[in-house]
Amino acid sequence: MHMAVTASVPNREMKPTAAAGFDWPETARPCRLTVLGATGSVGKSTLDLVGRAPERFEVMALTAQSNAPALAALARQHRAKLAVIGDEKCLGQLRDELAGTGIRTSAGSGALVEAALMPADCVMAAIVGAAGLRPTFAAASRGRRVALANKECLVSAGHVFTAEVKRSGAELLPVDSEHSAAFQALTGAEPGSIEKIVLTASGGPFRTWAREALENATPEQALKHPNWSMGAKITIDSATLMNKGLELIEAFHLFPVAADALDCVVHPQSIVHCLVSYVDGSVLAQMAAPDMRTPIAVALAWPGRMVAPTERLDLARLGSLTFEAPDETRFPALRVARSALRRGDTAPAVLNAANEIGVQAFLNRRIKFLEIARLVEETLDVAERQGAICPAQCLDDILLIDELARRLAEDALNRY
Amino acid sequence: MHMAVTASVPNREMKPTAAAGFDWPETARPCRLTVLGATGSVGKSTLDLVGRAPERFEVMALTAQSNAPALAALARQHRAKLAVIGDEKCLGQLRDELAGTGIRTSAGSGALVEAALMPADCVMAAIVGAAGLRPTFAAASRGRRVALANKECLVSAGHVFTAEVKRSGAELLPVDSEHSAAFQALTGAEPGSIEKIVLTASGGPFRTWAREALENATPEQALKHPNWSMGAKITIDSATLMNKGLELIEAFHLFPVAADALDCVVHPQSIVHCLVSYVDGSVLAQMAAPDMRTPIAVALAWPGRMVAPTERLDLARLGSLTFEAPDETRFPALRVARSALRRGDTAPAVLNAANEIGVQAFLNRRIKFLEIARLVEETLDVAERQGAICPAQCLDDILLIDELARRLAEDALNRY
Repeated sequence: MHMAVTASVPNREMKPTAAAGFDWPETARPCRLTVLGATGSVGKSTLDLVGRAPERFEVMALTAQSNAPALAALARQHRAKLAVIGDEKCLGQLRDELAGTGIRTSAGSGALVEAALMPADCVMAAIVGAAGLRPTFAAASRGRRVALANKECLVSAGHVFTAEVKRSGAELLPVDSEHSAAFQALTGAEPGSIEKIVLTASGGPFRTWAREALENATPEQALKHPNWSMGAKITIDSATLMNKGLELIEAFHLFPVAADALDCVVHPQSIVHCLVSYVDGSVLAQMAAPDMRTPIAVALAWPGRMVAPTERLDLARLGSLTFEAPDETRFPALRVARSALRRGDTAPAVLNAANEIGVQAFLNRRIKFLEIARLVEETLDVAERQGAICPAQCLDDILLIDELARRLAEDALNRY
Repeated sequence: MHMAVTASVPNREMKPTAAAGFDWPETARPCRLTVLGATGSVGKSTLDLVGRAPERFEVMALTAQSNAPALAALARQHRAKLAVIGDEKCLGQLRDELAGTGIRTSAGSGALVEAALMPADCVMAAIVGAAGLRPTFAAASRGRRVALANKECLVSAGHVFTAEVKRSGAELLPVDSEHSAAFQALTGAEPGSIEKIVLTASGGPFRTWAREALENATPEQALKHPNWSMGAKITIDSATLMNKGLELIEAFHLFPVAADALDCVVHPQSIVHCLVSYVDGSVLAQMAAPDMRTPIAVALAWPGRMVAPTERLDLARLGSLTFEAPDETRFPALRVARSALRRGDTAPAVLNAANEIGVQAFLNRRIKFLEIARLVEETLDVAERQGAICPAQCLDDILLIDELARRLAEDALNRY
């Protein structure tokens, strides 16, 4: 049985329970925080929380890909030490915006890595997509806390990334709502006492659609997510359930369980985010209103908790929480992702790359909705035949496989 | 703000997560276990678990009130060192049954206390009612683990009992399903990070009844609990919701929260047992099929987990979990219990004593269903006027108040 190597079952020291209330200890040094991807949705939510508890944080580096005005505004507001823009063409604008503030600036992909390496107690790794790989690896190499919101590090590069985390002794805290929920529900658990980890899926906009109707689902229909407002790529992934498949792969690398102990259940209200079953019949579940500030606050303040101004759950008002089994016939992406998880090695990297191509092709109306999963499955098959499903030793191996898989998927696309 | 003094927020040491599976460590000494109330429902479930993992336990003392044959059979089966029967008249029979086994026997209330004081790593305190007070106090005085299934120690004698636990350094693990759920969902929490603890209530057999119908509810109707099979007293308490009120009082003494941070919600499926809300918007909930072996296993194996052969949850099959606000107009016992909790001092002891009289009177058809809560409320008023709601210093104070309250309730009863 494969067991993940990251030491990521959470632990918390006992605190005296007779205290008259909890405050951030006055003697505690503020947490030196770097936010990679500060102008994205997770980055902005992170800095929203920081702005509500400025005494708890010292903002070190903030980065963005190309939105220099937004980055400059955040850097000013939070008195960052360093502002880094990925796109070198935007450096001039960033410099102008920050002139006279004393905030250092730099640009380019090397500078993003340098930002990640700047001394900090916690790095919020919130750069979306493959662009986040090198900076997040750099953050992990430093052996401090990494709050992980980049999916690719675990989906495509899981074994390599967790090996780096293990080597450096970094503390990996997941920021995805489902994995944050699992992390909380696993507090203190011995690996062998865990029977199952079940992630919930909203089921997306097509939860109740018949297979025939799914054949002709349009991008506009797929982009209407019932509970979360997110980018186009992840919203399509929620509609195909590929998103849940990718999350199962992430969970496999984050938590000490076998692939067979990971499952998902459709829960349209998106209130329960994950359920962990134990050998004594106990199931611990985390619930929260769908607001990313809750899992972000968990990752920032753990093992403590910090106030997040999110909507509080009122179960009596909600009335009911419903659950149903996912249907892999209508949502084949879930089956394909599970099979890549079981196959292991670089299969998840190929899955992820082919899926990106497929989603883009669907958004561009080159393929139909159900063809996304078909394209991914075909790409996996071709990659396997070509010997590209193999163990990876380092991030460069993963990047090569990623590139190859994209080419294979593009080739396959031309036959549609 | 009052904060409970017991150090009962759970803590677990980090275990290496790369282990290939969890087993009871071969080098670990078996847990020396005493079961007070071995022939009752919790006692039998405890010994069922022990029988499935005999290598993990060494059974020390087993006690029962009067069922000598059952006690003898359990003592033989589990090779107990000592068997104690509360009713001295049953000692002869117990001796005969255990002749030649080498198992020591004794009888009487003093012997029950001695059984509780016998060297043991864990005492399952499962004697029901006031009879459990002295033996459970004795178990707590030893400074080892007490798995607490006796309600009266916390409801009637909460302050005194938790002071004794604190003095001895005992480890208090709740066995009630709701409190075990809270305990699990509180793992590692800092008191100030807890916003609310919400216990669930099935709502009992009268959940959907109109107030007018409740006026004429019969004992037979009240005894039909939808989810749990329990004794008559607790089943009536579930029908009035007094049971949930008593559990709020227990939770107040077990966990480091103010009375206002305790609440309950009606959840007819009895799958979610408790929900703990944190300041970051997270809610941790414990769920399990209604089977006492799960919370018993938690109390025996904590901070590990042991296998319990209970029905596993299948949320997709269950389909839905529903929640509704409790109605204190139809279920006034809940309001009365909450008010006793807020009043503090000996008010919960008076509440508990008067409720026992009221439930018995209802079962004997001397009063109507809704008069149980009225009787309790009247008794609390009279006790307050007589100065009997006051701080208690020791268990004897509580026993005096208990006796007084029963007399006051009987007096009030004569006016119905």
